[in-house]
This record gives sequence, C-alpha cells and structure tokens, in this order.
Amino acid sequence: MKKNDIKVCLTPALFELYSDRKSVVVVVDILRATSAMCIAIERGVEKIIPVSTVEEALDFKGRENHILAAERNGKIVSGFDYGNSPLTYLNEDIKGKTLVVTTTNGTKAINIAKVDHHVVIGSFLNINSLSEYLSDLNKDIIILCAGWKNDFCLEDTMFAGALINQLVKKNNFQHFSDSCSVASLIYKTAEIDMFDFLKDSQHRKRLSDLNINEDVSYCLKRNETNLIPIIVEDQIEAFK
Amino acid sequence: MKKNDIKVCLTPALFELYSDRKSVVVVVDILRATSAMCIAIERGVEKIIPVSTVEEALDFKGRENHILAAERNGKIVSGFDYGNSPLTYLNEDIKGKTLVVTTTNGTKAINIAKVDHHVVIGSFLNINSLSEYLSDLNKDIIILCAGWKNDFCLEDTMFAGALINQLVKKNNFQHFSDSCSVASLIYKTAEIDMFDFLKDSQHRKRLSDLNINEDVSYCLKRNETNLIPIIVEDQIEAFK
Repeated sequence: MKKNDIKVCLTPALFELYSDRKSVVVVVDILRATSAMCIAIERGVEKIIPVSTVEEALDFKGRENHILAAERNGKIVSGFDYGNSPLTYLNEDIKGKTLVVTTTNGTKAINIAKVDHHVVIGSFLNINSLSEYLSDLNKDIIILCAGWKNDFCLEDTMFAGALINQLVKKNNFQHFSDSCSVASLIYKTAEIDMFDFLKDSQHRKRLSDLNINEDVSYCLKRNETNLIPIIVEDQIEAFK
Repeated sequence: MKKNDIKVCLTPALFELYSDRKSVVVVVDILRATSAMCIAIERGVEKIIPVSTVEEALDFKGRENHILAAERNGKIVSGFDYGNSPLTYLNEDIKGKTLVVTTTNGTKAINIAKVDHHVVIGSFLNINSLSEYLSDLNKDIIILCAGWKNDFCLEDTMFAGALINQLVKKNNFQHFSDSCSVASLIYKTAEIDMFDFLKDSQHRKRLSDLNINEDVSYCLKRNETNLIPIIVEDQIEAFK
C-alpha cells in the first residue's frame, strides 16, 4: 500500500513551496486561534467565518445571531466581545451562533490554505479525533504552522511533531523532510512537560503581561473535543 | 553594557522579516557552498565573485586568472571545472586566482543579504575565528541559513546553534527568538556526533547517490582555517 506523505510548512510565508492543490492542509495556531476554534465548535457555535481584517469582521456587526471576535498582538481588539482566548468560549451564549473571527496569524493561514486545498483545523484539544479523521481521509497532509507574523514559532511546530507522532503509528503515513524532523525533535523534547518547555518561548514572553498562562495550560490539554472543524464553502463547521 | 542581539533567519524566503540594514549577516550553507568558500580562501583564492545564475558565471569564461564553479542540485554543472565540494579546493591550482561561483542556495542567500548588510561567510571550518570576529565587531547579528530552495534545512540551523553557543559564552550577546531556541536545540542534540545526526537529513538522502559522505565529514570539521571571508564591494575576500 502506498503511504501518504506528511509535510510540515513552518510558516505561511513558505506555503507556496508546499501548495500542491491536492493535499489536505491542517492549519495550526496553538496559541490560541485554532485552539479557540475547536472549543467554540465543541460548545455549539454553528459555523465560523474566518476573515483577514478587522474591517471585514466589522461588516458583520449587528447581524442577528452573529458574534464577533478580533485579536491583534494577543489582545481583544477594542469594540469586540471576543478575542482568541479559548476560555471565553466556554459559555452558553455562543450556542447556535455564527462566529466571525480575525486573528493575528491563524485566520491568515486558513485563508491562504483554503484557496486550493481542503482545510482542517487542528489543536491539542482535538488531536486524537483529528488523527483518526486524517487516517480515514487517506491523503497526503501538509501541517501548516500559523507561526507569528510569518515567522517560525515553537508551539505550532511542537504540535506538528505531536501530530506526526500519532499519524506514523497508524502505518499509512511517512515523512522525509527536515521540517518534519525538527517538529518531531521539538515534540520529543517538550513531551514530558509542554507548559514548561514553552516557558522561554517568544509567545509566552511576548504575552507575559497579558497573564495568559491559564490559556496556555488549556491549549495544551488533549482531547477536550471529538469534533473536527473543517472548511466548507469558506466557512468552518464541524465535520459530520 | 548593552548586549548585541543574535537572530536566526531559517531560510532566505524569510529574510525580509529580518533585514534591518544594520546587523551583520552571517551566511551559512554548510553542505557545501560556504564551507567550500572558506577553504578556497584558505588555500589562496584571492577573491570570490558570487553570482546567481549559471549564465552570469559563464560570462567570465576564458578570463585570465579566473576559475569557474557552478553547482545545481548537488552536481557540478556541465562545462565547469568546480562545484561546491570543499575537497576539490584543496589543491595548488587555485592560488591567487579569482573564483566565480554559483550554487543552488548559498550564492543566492549571499546576494540577497549583501544588498543592505555587511556579509560574512560562516562554516564549521572557520567557526572559532568567526565568533572572535563577530565579538570584536560588536554589532547585532543575523545568521542567515541558506536552506534548500528557500525551505528549512537541518544542517544550516544546526550550525546556527553551534555559533550561538560560542557567541553567548562571550557575554556580549543575547537572543530571544524561537528560531534561536530551535537552532540551539538542534545543535545540543547533534553535538556529540553531527555526522550521525545528519544521516537522516533531507540533504544526505537527496545526495546519497552522489557519494558525498567524505564532503559531509569535511564540512563538519572545525577550524581548518582562521580566515574570515567577508563581502567587500560585491566580492568575497579574506578579512584583513
């Protein structure tokens, strides 16, 4: 049986080297956009509309049944009720609603990938069901790390290593690239205590004054949901 | 005393995120362009002209006292006498000559960086004198990994980790970024046996049919030269 290839694209700036119009793309922005999306879908958001700019998000203001989220540089943009903290989505108000969202890195990565690819949203919060889904799909995979402003980041690459680790156990996957090797090395080093491993990461240093440790802990929890957010006609909804 | 920042740019595709018109840029293409340049300068090449295309290199054909080198995908381009194997520069014929060179990744990285920055050529073959030079220079540093066709590669990032390791011991350097962290992690993991660490790297798999193991071993040797190749008016020559 031919095995499917796994590749890791370390930042959206490199995506054109990977784009092949046939692989499934797993978009990853662990801290915190794709983690928040996974939990919003779990808690009953019906669909998510990812937009690239704050202006596009504001176009939806006042629409019935819509909630608006915007994050820039780790903070909720003034005038919005939600940002990218997954903890804020653990409430009942979001049930059945449409979530319009723009974030510094995550929604940009989604919008680049969705042009020519089937896109799936990944995080530790859905990693088991995600790897089951990918195994069943039986296609080549690109794990697209959202990174930070087009540059490399540790936490997304660490997640890529964790996902590779689960996928290769399923026997129908293989990988050859140096970016897969480095993702695996990061995950192997971080695995015992991911929270501690990330303590010196740029992301945590950058946001240390925002007191997001509780968010970071939550984003590193595994399998809080079995749902797989996928892109269908430019919107994110749970795979059924 | 203010410490100087070290940054690692993982591929030339990300260089525009790093370019600041004031840092010194250390260009690294361990396998094998910058290793070959270091040893060519050591063995008496007077200057090196890095060009981006094979056509530009051919413009120098027949010029007195010039030798021409061109490498693509690991092989010497047909019609050229030299490629990027450092071992081929261990001969007397190159003394006092001008070396015109184009390689798949290394010369491209040099030509991107030299537009707005002071550029230095780095490799394990000159790592000690390089770190002395950088420490004396007392400027912020960008280590630019040539990578492979604009993508990440293990060996250049491993070297970046080795150089960071030497620089931080000199006390006048600091680093904060995730790409520095990952470079340090790779080097720490590889340090005991770098040749063995790279055995599963894309580069060695890609070139396994070219039998370059001897080249790889040589490129991982330390301090075969004390010379620092630097760019002066678009040409590479030894720092005096």
